[in-house]
Amino acid sequence: MPKSKVVIVGTGMVGMSYAYSVFNQGTCEELVLIDIDKNRAEGEAMDLNHGMAFAPRKMKIYAGEYSDCKDADLVVITAGVSQKEGETRIDLLNRNAKIMKLVVNDVMKSGFDGIIMVASNPVDILAYVAKKASGLPSGKVIGSGTSLDTARLRYEISKKINISVSNIHAYILGEHGDSEFACWSNAYIGVKPMVDVIESMSEITFDDLESIHNSVKHSAYEIIKRKKATYYGIGMTLESITHAIINNENRIIPISVYNDGVYDIDPDLYIGLPAVLNSAGVHHIVKLKLNEKEQVQLKESAKILKDILDQMEF
Amino acid sequence: MPKSKVVIVGTGMVGMSYAYSVFNQGTCEELVLIDIDKNRAEGEAMDLNHGMAFAPRKMKIYAGEYSDCKDADLVVITAGVSQKEGETRIDLLNRNAKIMKLVVNDVMKSGFDGIIMVASNPVDILAYVAKKASGLPSGKVIGSGTSLDTARLRYEISKKINISVSNIHAYILGEHGDSEFACWSNAYIGVKPMVDVIESMSEITFDDLESIHNSVKHSAYEIIKRKKATYYGIGMTLESITHAIINNENRIIPISVYNDGVYDIDPDLYIGLPAVLNSAGVHHIVKLKLNEKEQVQLKESAKILKDILDQMEF
Amino acid sequence: MPKSKVVIVGTGMVGMSYAYSVFNQGTCEELVLIDIDKNRAEGEAMDLNHGMAFAPRKMKIYAGEYSDCKDADLVVITAGVSQKEGETRIDLLNRNAKIMKLVVNDVMKSGFDGIIMVASNPVDILAYVAKKASGLPSGKVIGSGTSLDTARLRYEISKKINISVSNIHAYILGEHGDSEFACWSNAYIGVKPMVDVIESMSEITFDDLESIHNSVKHSAYEIIKRKKATYYGIGMTLESITHAIINNENRIIPISVYNDGVYDIDPDLYIGLPAVLNSAGVHHIVKLKLNEKEQVQLKESAKILKDILDQMEF
Amino acid sequence: MPKSKVVIVGTGMVGMSYAYSVFNQGTCEELVLIDIDKNRAEGEAMDLNHGMAFAPRKMKIYAGEYSDCKDADLVVITAGVSQKEGETRIDLLNRNAKIMKLVVNDVMKSGFDGIIMVASNPVDILAYVAKKASGLPSGKVIGSGTSLDTARLRYEISKKINISVSNIHAYILGEHGDSEFACWSNAYIGVKPMVDVIESMSEITFDDLESIHNSVKHSAYEIIKRKKATYYGIGMTLESITHAIINNENRIIPISVYNDGVYDIDPDLYIGLPAVLNSAGVHHIVKLKLNEKEQVQLKESAKILKDILDQMEF
Repeated sequence: MPKSKVVIVGTGMVGMSYAYSVFNQGTCEELVLIDIDKNRAEGEAMDLNHGMAFAPRKMKIYAGEYSDCKDADLVVITAGVSQKEGETRIDLLNRNAKIMKLVVNDVMKSGFDGIIMVASNPVDILAYVAKKASGLPSGKVIGSGTSLDTARLRYEISKKINISVSNIHAYILGEHGDSEFACWSNAYIGVKPMVDVIESMSEITFDDLESIHNSVKHSAYEIIKRKKATYYGIGMTLESITHAIINNENRIIPISVYNDGVYDIDPDLYIGLPAVLNSAGVHHIVKLKLNEKEQVQLKESAKILKDILDQMEF
Repeated sequence: MPKSKVVIVGTGMVGMSYAYSVFNQGTCEELVLIDIDKNRAEGEAMDLNHGMAFAPRKMKIYAGEYSDCKDADLVVITAGVSQKEGETRIDLLNRNAKIMKLVVNDVMKSGFDGIIMVASNPVDILAYVAKKASGLPSGKVIGSGTSLDTARLRYEISKKINISVSNIHAYILGEHGDSEFACWSNAYIGVKPMVDVIESMSEITFDDLESIHNSVKHSAYEIIKRKKATYYGIGMTLESITHAIINNENRIIPISVYNDGVYDIDPDLYIGLPAVLNSAGVHHIVKLKLNEKEQVQLKESAKILKDILDQMEF
Repeated sequence: MPKSKVVIVGTGMVGMSYAYSVFNQGTCEELVLIDIDKNRAEGEAMDLNHGMAFAPRKMKIYAGEYSDCKDADLVVITAGVSQKEGETRIDLLNRNAKIMKLVVNDVMKSGFDGIIMVASNPVDILAYVAKKASGLPSGKVIGSGTSLDTARLRYEISKKINISVSNIHAYILGEHGDSEFACWSNAYIGVKPMVDVIESMSEITFDDLESIHNSVKHSAYEIIKRKKATYYGIGMTLESITHAIINNENRIIPISVYNDGVYDIDPDLYIGLPAVLNSAGVHHIVKLKLNEKEQVQLKESAKILKDILDQMEF
Repeated sequence: MPKSKVVIVGTGMVGMSYAYSVFNQGTCEELVLIDIDKNRAEGEAMDLNHGMAFAPRKMKIYAGEYSDCKDADLVVITAGVSQKEGETRIDLLNRNAKIMKLVVNDVMKSGFDGIIMVASNPVDILAYVAKKASGLPSGKVIGSGTSLDTARLRYEISKKINISVSNIHAYILGEHGDSEFACWSNAYIGVKPMVDVIESMSEITFDDLESIHNSVKHSAYEIIKRKKATYYGIGMTLESITHAIINNENRIIPISVYNDGVYDIDPDLYIGLPAVLNSAGVHHIVKLKLNEKEQVQLKESAKILKDILDQMEF
């Protein structure tokens, strides 16, 4: 009998919060933890396994090797290093890109033929690196992109207008970083355009859109200030993407995808755009009609990513 | 400790499919079955209870009396009779309205102060009857309205364009009956207007909208032709509305609500419109901008309901 | 990506209650409905699909053909006919056995290599027929056996002593029929033997055991008296067995299994015994130490089944 | 409409892993985070809330004050300090007891009348402190006790014999600490006594019991060696206890309870024993028949706890 198998590379707080969410929601049948510190991965597997009696679904969880990727449906890469003192941003990037290449090479050597999801930052750049290093079709390599930013946006709007987050349809697009933007021209509450919502609800004004977007942009900063790192929100976001893939949902999610000319921006890069995801990966990128301001924002965001890619060694 | 309690009046196939869905999804903590045939209700409770070991959540299920409505959060009424030979439509209606009044009177006598959801047909008329008979504020009495029709619409569109039903945002509005209509001007796939979707996807054309709507309208007929009655789809639809109420979700659902002037149609009637639902009932009706054709459709649909109400004895 | 696929043969109330439970609990990814009345199966698939927006997991549901069994993990057979006027019990049995053979032959012709679960009655006899007709190893063919009776037993004990059904560990064994018996010598509440429970709790006496067992034995009769048929309890029981198989749980469930000498009873027959189930089928039968009375009960129950098998045409 | 409300005091890794498990499993409707570092609690609430779009159930999550305990059903206390250099074990204990008293006083001042669950260590001692400080009936104050140890035991046995953890019925009893013991005389696989399992399965021997128990006892040590702390297993264990309370399950769980003479050990202390839990707290302690060795083990374990209590300042 076939089974759904996910491999996590990197058992830091992001990787493990994702693992814990997957375990508590019963998202797959087999979960493999890989870390450069094998002991750490083993400890994490032990800690998770002790909750087995209380999980909604039996799950095979263990600390594994890259060879375990062979028959995996999905490999989620959260590995990465942080800035050393005196290190430039590009040096750090090249270091992380090198790690990504090594990880992806090891994954591919197993004979892996599934989907790679990159969650390490800068996610758009590293997803590009992963695609190149893997040689997989672009639809098989994705990055978490602006999916978490979008979840934050939906939560903030939901809180503001007191309507269920399940009815908030709006995206953050572009680079997962400073140049990202809220695509307000395509934002809806239920089936009601945001502009009509603002017109009819006293709870929200045009000014609030600006402050909601700011709050989203500074979320990570505000959380890090209070608890040093962010990991729960991204953990559940990655779980949700995993669910869409494992269950072949054809669900639209804003993730980092390879832009192949669908949007009129610099080509040959990864950037946050809405895409239809299923068990084969990206089915297609959803082309939205952006207003002029948003077109510029997306172009500029792409340009920033392109410039970084151009500075990197491949 | 407080508990969420739902009472079902009428243990026919609709009531019981709803009960079974609620039991399998663990939607509430206490479930009471009431039927004019108390033996039937007892048999149903026994049959459900035997699955207790396999339910996601402990649930107290039993055949009860109207006095059990006293502390219920939600009473769902599915009771009703069908046409006798030679009976006119209005005679049948008056008979069902009489039953609704009797049921609601018995519910209210218990000291009930929760939400009533009517699922008996014609649902818009009988929800109106239930509101009048109960004396409850209009936001506390709802009908299932076009929620099932909308679920069917979403399923048909999803199948047509191969995108997750969770991304299909579109409603059937108006009377739950022949005069209902698909509100295409407010239909979106993700955040993309249906007109843009048609422009960009080869899977769907404007002609398909017509045939999808027809297929939705004839769904009940097609199912009844094959299996004599429909009950599973409505069972899950009612479960979903229950979930939104019990969990205080503030979710937007197209249900039969009391139109209080929000839409420019005949006043003082129940009709299918999108509304924000929470544990207090209808928080507010969502006012959409309809195109001219849809405005006419809604007005005509309301007119039909009004005419029926005018013919009835109260 | 692999997917879990279940085929249901027979869309009567038992088959469909099982389907609805599986759909509401998200037990598998693909569900195929087969019925001799293809229209009926189509109507059922339509009715289920309309609830898709409210299911916990995307599921592909459709009315299919026997050829769809090819890559199924599990085929659940609920098909069968009921007694004609004047028909002897053995004639009825031979008619049902003939149907079972035809169904199994059609299933096997597809190239099917999964697990068959028989839910048609008399289940122990028809599981035997299915095994013979399929040519599959005995561990790949099971019957629902006394799993529902056991669920009823657990519910009744739970109600009596007011302790969670999840802590009631006790089985009904033997034929799914009049000769079945409660195996009280191996009954525990938590880890406490039933005899100690009776000694320490005023809620229950030895006399209650008798009446609980009687109530279990007459459950079907009592339900049928009130609602003409039983289907919800068995639906959830079959769902639970399916869950154990699909998720490779190695769970112990009392089902109808091929007795291969594990218990000292007539060989070469199917009978209700506790067995460890996983995705490969029956891993092994659990051999319990029965007391003398229970040994006799099991032998007699097996004898009854053997006598029936001996009277049948193969 | 009533809602289930849980307050967590202490947002360290244990408290937050519990919160994340509760959020991912949809265990309650309102979740309040309290920490001496209010900023930390706020950061945690933000991080969780960003996953709202992907949770199975809407949950109101926020950083709160002790006054929020007023209408809570359950307060879970995970707060505590760790050993300072040169500090004796008793000094540390007195410090933690002082914190517990302060916390409980603040909780009670709100008008709280629910259940307190202590998860801070040493849990048996601090549960006793919490009971005294709260003035609540003993059944309303519990400690996590040996519930995690039991979960570990069940996992290890399950892995050894390859049978579902749901069929492993065995407890670790006594102090949550060095003197705890596996109660093998009351251990069952399904309904089969462990001694019979060993006799009939080649997978396990009597020697394995010893090594399994050792592995359980050293679990925390082994995990801490690898990842510095343990929190996921306890998080899911606490979630499971919460589920039993919120849903009024009357489930038997080995937790730290106030021994009131049910077992023949030192009176007036908290220790790990199986108890029936529901929404009112401990319904009753389950009295098991222990063998002589286990009776001694339990007495000695209780003696150790009593000695500590005697050394403490109250």
